Amino acid sequence: MTGFVKNAWYVAGWSREIDAELRRVTLLNEHVVMFRKSDGSVVALEDRCPHRLLPLSKGKRIGDTVQCGYHGLTFDCSGKCVRVPGQTNLPASAYVQAYPIVEKHDIVWIWMGDPAKADPETVFDMPEFSDPNWAAHQGDALHLKSNYLNVAENLVDPAHVSFVHPTTLGSSASENVPVHVRTEGEAIVAWRWIRDAEPVGFFKAFGGFAGNVDRWHYYYLYTPCTAVIDFGSIDTEKHCAEEDRDQGVRIFALHFMTPVTETHTIDRWMHLRNTAQDDPEAADRMDAMFRKAFAEDQEILEAVQQEELRPAKRRPIRIAIDKGPLVYRKRINDLLELERTEDLASDPSPAFVYHD
Amino acid sequence: MTGFVKNAWYVAGWSREIDAELRRVTLLNEHVVMFRKSDGSVVALEDRCPHRLLPLSKGKRIGDTVQCGYHGLTFDCSGKCVRVPGQTNLPASAYVQAYPIVEKHDIVWIWMGDPAKADPETVFDMPEFSDPNWAAHQGDALHLKSNYLNVAENLVDPAHVSFVHPTTLGSSASENVPVHVRTEGEAIVAWRWIRDAEPVGFFKAFGGFAGNVDRWHYYYLYTPCTAVIDFGSIDTEKHCAEEDRDQGVRIFALHFMTPVTETHTIDRWMHLRNTAQDDPEAADRMDAMFRKAFAEDQEILEAVQQEELRPAKRRPIRIAIDKGPLVYRKRINDLLELERTEDLASDPSPAFVYHD
Amino acid sequence: MTGFVKNAWYVAGWSREIDAELRRVTLLNEHVVMFRKSDGSVVALEDRCPHRLLPLSKGKRIGDTVQCGYHGLTFDCSGKCVRVPGQTNLPASAYVQAYPIVEKHDIVWIWMGDPAKADPETVFDMPEFSDPNWAAHQGDALHLKSNYLNVAENLVDPAHVSFVHPTTLGSSASENVPVHVRTEGEAIVAWRWIRDAEPVGFFKAFGGFAGNVDRWHYYYLYTPCTAVIDFGSIDTEKHCAEEDRDQGVRIFALHFMTPVTETHTIDRWMHLRNTAQDDPEAADRMDAMFRKAFAEDQEILEAVQQEELRPAKRRPIRIAIDKGPLVYRKRINDLLELERTEDLASDPSPAFVYHD
Repeated sequence: MTGFVKNAWYVAGWSREIDAELRRVTLLNEHVVMFRKSDGSVVALEDRCPHRLLPLSKGKRIGDTVQCGYHGLTFDCSGKCVRVPGQTNLPASAYVQAYPIVEKHDIVWIWMGDPAKADPETVFDMPEFSDPNWAAHQGDALHLKSNYLNVAENLVDPAHVSFVHPTTLGSSASENVPVHVRTEGEAIVAWRWIRDAEPVGFFKAFGGFAGNVDRWHYYYLYTPCTAVIDFGSIDTEKHCAEEDRDQGVRIFALHFMTPVTETHTIDRWMHLRNTAQDDPEAADRMDAMFRKAFAEDQEILEAVQQEELRPAKRRPIRIAIDKGPLVYRKRINDLLELERTEDLASDPSPAFVYHD
Repeated sequence: MTGFVKNAWYVAGWSREIDAELRRVTLLNEHVVMFRKSDGSVVALEDRCPHRLLPLSKGKRIGDTVQCGYHGLTFDCSGKCVRVPGQTNLPASAYVQAYPIVEKHDIVWIWMGDPAKADPETVFDMPEFSDPNWAAHQGDALHLKSNYLNVAENLVDPAHVSFVHPTTLGSSASENVPVHVRTEGEAIVAWRWIRDAEPVGFFKAFGGFAGNVDRWHYYYLYTPCTAVIDFGSIDTEKHCAEEDRDQGVRIFALHFMTPVTETHTIDRWMHLRNTAQDDPEAADRMDAMFRKAFAEDQEILEAVQQEELRPAKRRPIRIAIDKGPLVYRKRINDLLELERTEDLASDPSPAFVYHD
Repeated sequence: MTGFVKNAWYVAGWSREIDAELRRVTLLNEHVVMFRKSDGSVVALEDRCPHRLLPLSKGKRIGDTVQCGYHGLTFDCSGKCVRVPGQTNLPASAYVQAYPIVEKHDIVWIWMGDPAKADPETVFDMPEFSDPNWAAHQGDALHLKSNYLNVAENLVDPAHVSFVHPTTLGSSASENVPVHVRTEGEAIVAWRWIRDAEPVGFFKAFGGFAGNVDRWHYYYLYTPCTAVIDFGSIDTEKHCAEEDRDQGVRIFALHFMTPVTETHTIDRWMHLRNTAQDDPEAADRMDAMFRKAFAEDQEILEAVQQEELRPAKRRPIRIAIDKGPLVYRKRINDLLELERTEDLASDPSPAFVYHD
């Protein structure tokens, strides 16, 4: 098992999932209790009383504080203990951890690492969220019995589409079309164009195309757990350039992965579209197609996870289409190593490493 | 995990639970086969044939012996092998362990430790069992997915009552009433009086009080696994002294904890009352109220156990109300240490410990 | 846990269980994908793609090749990779293991060890399979939650019959009849005759005997996992000699044990009979009696397995009737030791072992 990158924003839920009730949420193998306080903002505290370890989510709210259900220790929204029944002093060690929260575009983000490093400016965003030409729609919270790395690697891997989704997102005609990979700052981008081909299931349903199309897949994977898949189709005769994809029917499928445990990941997915923006039924039909496709992924990813838990007879092989996943895995390992120790040098100058 | 104190009497069952049939009982993570022999006394043997390890409870009784269901090895009530089919010699190593048993007040007690240390005189007793002014009634065998230490500590902890049982045994009015703790020989006693208050649910139902009452809780915890809770109410105007509690409506709730495994405890509870002694319906109504209250404990104790099994981020805190549990935990640890080694000195004089 | 002998033929299934579909079979804690190719022969491959570890059984057949369901890597029946989509080179390490298969008498045998040692001539056979005086009938694939060693030892153990199967295969009259044991090449043989006794349930049903019979049990156990039980009855007055058992009503019950995991064994059983050869109802009635008897074994074997997984308090004892199991256990341990290392000397002459 690899471990989790802690200094990052993770999705704790769609905004609609969090209300005034105490609710347990599990992320990175830790239990958090969440609720909206009276001003509507979201609070996240360690879900374990420091006294007898009862989850605070088993207790109750008293105004904007949380009272433990066993002996009544009470904590404010910063995690500070404000009452210990039976005594008047409030020891400093009577606290629970509080987690930074940002709510944006109807999504609740949480920071599980060092609070001092939590910068709200680095929460994921994209201009289409605020662009009236685009319609956004939240889909499901899909529970996958798989490590988040397997889920993420699947989302920077256009090659699997021909084999896993032959009737929805891909077709066997594109099995051998090569995959390109580059990095763009924090994103790893894997993409390919399938030129002059029959529209696939999805764009038969939504494009209204008469003849052949050029179809693209751009997979953007942001470390550690956000993926954007830009895919679309356009009449082959328009000879679309890479930068003009907006002229076609274009969809962004967003995946926010929340590692729950080492073998359980929630994939919250949503989509943005530049077509049928005012038609809520279009969103529902897209949901239905995505659900079918993601159930195909689920079967693969959960079977892979089961195998990974078994003894290895030899090292797995890597092939040409794995460039995106390999860069991703390296980035994750670098981040984990960075978090494994605490570097106290402001400008670290390792003593024994020279590159001539 | 802490382990179990072996040299102690534990409740193996209510008398009504054991009859002529072979019955597997699990205590301290060991399997025991129990039955009543022809003279009505209870026998307890190691539930594992020394040959192929088949549980003897899968075999059958032949008179007052037990025959293994696999190859017919037969054991008498002392655990000695009296038959090996296919051969005439009976090797000395062909035996199963036999456990001392005492049956008293319709309760079957078992000794899982060194039989030479088992003294029937030390089985739990109290004068009210034999007093005609008192009515005794056996309740349930409540299975708790929790370590026995958590269950026991809950039973020397009057402070939780206000928060866990606000509608049955306690009320929020008493949240801050201080808890007193003392030791009385083998018992740890934690108690508090709530003076001049409205009767709580239980005594609304059973006391018939018109005005305010003085209410008491005395928790007696006998190491390792017996708890007696003396609680009652009396008219505030009577100015009841501590030693005159018999003049009020007084109930003893007894809890006999049987550790099954490290995370499973049976809490057999019963009650004695000095009111409505001849009214069996009163016993049933008390059972119903206890069941409600103990289900409240169960939810707490099982959630606490789940948390204890997870990694600790830091040491739990202890507070003023924890005096009783702390003394109990220390006593258990001392007993475990005593059993961990075998002290061969009759008057142990440690060589290197001096206290000036 | 003892481990598995790998260089041996194991039953992977009745022939009727394997068809053109990809089917996962688990043996010796390894997953294998099996199918019949277009010429009707059976193929067995490691059920794990060397790329992302997806089980090949989740993929699909393309002619006589298997295509992985994740990225389309394709393997031929020898396990060689013949296609990697997205690239033209086929690295040598892109392979899956292929397992030798022999199909004989409607049974599929597999070799999980070193393929160079797999000799089809050593697959189990017996002349009665091809003898028109005998009728063969395949029974069930009985799943036992027990280690194969416990199952096998039960099959070289005539003594348990009196206690486990008192109403079907045995009777209490024979509890003390001694068991004989010898080895015959690869077989361990345990047997006993019960002379001049009432027929047991099985031969009441099938023998049509009027008076007393001589009854025999011969248990042949072939290391590691094949057992033949030769049992039958004959009129006592015929004074049957050991070698004339064919003159009586004679049944062979065959057990092919397939270790699935350390605690799960499939017992595929079948029978051959020299009576009622043309009566299919006789086979069905025998199945019904065997199912009853083997369910009795199942309860014992699974209870024993549960006990074996618990801590041992002392060494189990062995008694006179255990000779067959003891020889079997020794043979298994010798084979495991032989496989544990790789002996490179063609004629190993250990340097320091002298027997004068």
